[in-house]
Amino acid sequence: MPFKNDLILRAARGEQVERTPVWLMRQAGRVLPEYRAVRSKMGGFKELVETPEFACEVTIQPVDILNVDAAIIFSDILVIPEAMGLPYQMIETKGPWFEKTITNSDDIKQLKIATADDLHYVMDAIKLTKKGLNNRVPLIGFAGAPWTIFAYMIEGSGSKTFSKAKKFLYTQPLLSHQLLQKITDSTINYLKGQIRAGADMLQLFDSWAGVLSPKQYTEFALKYIAQICDSITEVPITVFAKDAHYVRKEMGALNCNSIGLDWTMDIKESRELIGNNKTLQGNMDPCLLYADFNTIRSETKKMLLQFGPQRHIANLGHGLYPDLEKDKVKCFVETIQEFRF
Amino acid sequence: MPFKNDLILRAARGEQVERTPVWLMRQAGRVLPEYRAVRSKMGGFKELVETPEFACEVTIQPVDILNVDAAIIFSDILVIPEAMGLPYQMIETKGPWFEKTITNSDDIKQLKIATADDLHYVMDAIKLTKKGLNNRVPLIGFAGAPWTIFAYMIEGSGSKTFSKAKKFLYTQPLLSHQLLQKITDSTINYLKGQIRAGADMLQLFDSWAGVLSPKQYTEFALKYIAQICDSITEVPITVFAKDAHYVRKEMGALNCNSIGLDWTMDIKESRELIGNNKTLQGNMDPCLLYADFNTIRSETKKMLLQFGPQRHIANLGHGLYPDLEKDKVKCFVETIQEFRF
Repeated sequence: MPFKNDLILRAARGEQVERTPVWLMRQAGRVLPEYRAVRSKMGGFKELVETPEFACEVTIQPVDILNVDAAIIFSDILVIPEAMGLPYQMIETKGPWFEKTITNSDDIKQLKIATADDLHYVMDAIKLTKKGLNNRVPLIGFAGAPWTIFAYMIEGSGSKTFSKAKKFLYTQPLLSHQLLQKITDSTINYLKGQIRAGADMLQLFDSWAGVLSPKQYTEFALKYIAQICDSITEVPITVFAKDAHYVRKEMGALNCNSIGLDWTMDIKESRELIGNNKTLQGNMDPCLLYADFNTIRSETKKMLLQFGPQRHIANLGHGLYPDLEKDKVKCFVETIQEFRF
Repeated sequence: MPFKNDLILRAARGEQVERTPVWLMRQAGRVLPEYRAVRSKMGGFKELVETPEFACEVTIQPVDILNVDAAIIFSDILVIPEAMGLPYQMIETKGPWFEKTITNSDDIKQLKIATADDLHYVMDAIKLTKKGLNNRVPLIGFAGAPWTIFAYMIEGSGSKTFSKAKKFLYTQPLLSHQLLQKITDSTINYLKGQIRAGADMLQLFDSWAGVLSPKQYTEFALKYIAQICDSITEVPITVFAKDAHYVRKEMGALNCNSIGLDWTMDIKESRELIGNNKTLQGNMDPCLLYADFNTIRSETKKMLLQFGPQRHIANLGHGLYPDLEKDKVKCFVETIQEFRF
């Protein structure tokens, strides 16, 4: 059965679209009162991630409520370190925390290469969601990019500088490559599993790209992203490396369909650096959605004009913040969907 | 009496230098055991800032110990909000915290425009330090750039996104400009006082430049930095806007002497964007100093070659991290001072 709305897949592949498709990072989340209602019935974030029925429910919510052009499976990038042998807790207001971190060669040897079976709850959530969506819109699967996963595995939590993780790159380059390869192999298994379960499109999130130098990013991050992109041939894949302004040109050479931009990246300059063979995704500042409705509409239209009518998937340059108003978010989505070039 | 070593002033003014000068952001700080010894005798960070004898002592330490080509007065960018009427606490491991924040027009009206007298302890520290340095090397004064100060005054603490402060920009643009102007006027008074007290050079730190969009940065940040640069005619001034990669071209038009770069900014590209009329400062990744001595030496030399022999002040792209080893820091400084093109 064909999709009722396949705009995002066509935009990703560079095919002609009648209008620009839109979805939002963290669209399944606290910005929706309906999400908060489901979550209040559950024990916490991780329980939600690990319970396919609820993950399915909150994944479909933004399609019903915000009318976005794609769903993205409700999950977390840190399921991969957990499946490899490093369990984590999600501490309210503090973020993720790992009891055990990677400090030496033995730690790396003890990690397993995760398989899709190790993450059966994600596969089950995808299968359920595909049924629930009934081909209304495509379903996006995702994973963290290897450097970001590595950063958490060494650091053990969030950090402003990720200096422990970067210290490991500088002092243990060979071990770093071993660990990054294990993460990459696990991620490929995981993403292939997501495709088999029904994901129509994939995204890699390199959330901590911005702390590396261009040289380190090329050596320790881009190399593994390239391996993943080369392995994914079945569905379109988007790479979003937040704050990696310095590597946009190299991103253009990746074997992927789309590149995500954040709001610090000039659209015209990014297009020149990345070239015409990629779809660009983004890149509104999420804080624009605190402004009044008229400002949201006019700034959103300006963004659309800068990207142009083709090879663009509209989105924010980061995830939705929990305290944004649902009606403001809807205004952003509607402005994009009503706009004609 | 002339300076024994005025390399940094000549480099800032674009005059010929025999070798590249070097200093380090946060060189007066926890990376030095001698600093930790002084600090352990004191009540805390703020007491140190407010006690001229101790501020002087720790300001001179890195000149003695690391042999850097400039001292920078030990202080904090948040003395300005405090002098304007918003006191803060520095909470160990958590960072700054303001009891009262700015939420409306009345809050802004109640703020005073700070004068140099309000910050007499900084002026006293500068005078003492100038005596203690005895013209061995120049003394750098500094202040936070208006946007960064504004961000703390609205947010009340550090933040990953500064979304409250950005929300204020989007929802209260007129009030934002009022507050930014008051901060700017205070900062000019403060920097003029630092010059009268003896500062030989100044630096503006825009630590949270990276969270704004290019449009917001131009409207709410660069405009006020330009006012400050235009007011400072007595001594060289450096502007360091961390992560503001997107505004390097516009920075080149500022009425300042030097522009600071962080390690994500490509040196050659930055030079092209900024032009040849500015001295560039930076830009080594502080985490390089976790590497072995040979790596530090070779990477530092590569950096020097990329900047070239003139119009460069060597530094890191961020402050020293407290857990770096003193000998590694010395190796970075020595490599620069021994290098000849």
